[in-house]
Amino acid sequence: MLESISSIEKSYLAGFLDADGSIYVQAKPNETYRFGFQIASYIVFYQSSKDEKAFSDMCSIIKLGHKRVRKDGIIEYIISRQEEIIQFINLIEPYIKLKKAQLELLKKIIDLKKKVQDKKDFIKLINLIDKFRELNYSKKRKKRTLTP
Amino acid sequence: MLESISSIEKSYLAGFLDADGSIYVQAKPNETYRFGFQIASYIVFYQSSKDEKAFSDMCSIIKLGHKRVRKDGIIEYIISRQEEIIQFINLIEPYIKLKKAQLELLKKIIDLKKKVQDKKDFIKLINLIDKFRELNYSKKRKKRTLTP
Repeated sequence: MLESISSIEKSYLAGFLDADGSIYVQAKPNETYRFGFQIASYIVFYQSSKDEKAFSDMCSIIKLGHKRVRKDGIIEYIISRQEEIIQFINLIEPYIKLKKAQLELLKKIIDLKKKVQDKKDFIKLINLIDKFRELNYSKKRKKRTLTP
Repeated sequence: MLESISSIEKSYLAGFLDADGSIYVQAKPNETYRFGFQIASYIVFYQSSKDEKAFSDMCSIIKLGHKRVRKDGIIEYIISRQEEIIQFINLIEPYIKLKKAQLELLKKIIDLKKKVQDKKDFIKLINLIDKFRELNYSKKRKKRTLTP
């Protein structure tokens, strides 16, 4: 399916993501997970609900992810499944101009996450996630306590 | 020069404009103008200053307009000369998915502005500008008093 997206469409989506899309990774405290955190990644597009029809048409090109209408009327188009994120990155990466570093790091994080075996690996993963936060917000690193 | 922009680049710029660009027209009260208003149109791209280098590279493809750094650190890339707006619209219009109506109306406004001969024409122009505001903000029309 995705192979049918033309390079013109991919380039459009890259421009859309560069301008206003979000790419982020969260380490959410969750005790049911082995090291006390759930790692979740997202690629999100936004639009106001007045452009819903055209925005939905645009998103339907992608054939990945899902749509969500927020209480404030903003529509989010969210890709959050790991395999879909990788698929999408591979599609648009050659056309991205501003957010190349984020896409590269996100691929690295998803790859490392699959390989985590012990606490040492997990700390490495958390450090990459902090690096990602810095790319996005230029903020200080969060302090986290790993369990157990 | 502009002919050298590839359709891939045009499509990227269209995605960028659809996602986060502004297209707007203002009727600014100004008594030195014949009917008491200066009509000014803008196409603007935004980016935070941390991406300045990549953003400038992107804007340099366009070879129109100028860059401005706002006090809050946001960089604006602004196309405001009428002929340049028309040139730019012609470049990207075929690739635009969300803001087609704005581009169409802006072309109409710039065209009508050139032809204004009397107050009746000018009122027609002001009405088009109000229609443009509605497209952008879904707000009520402004009340304006024309001079003289």
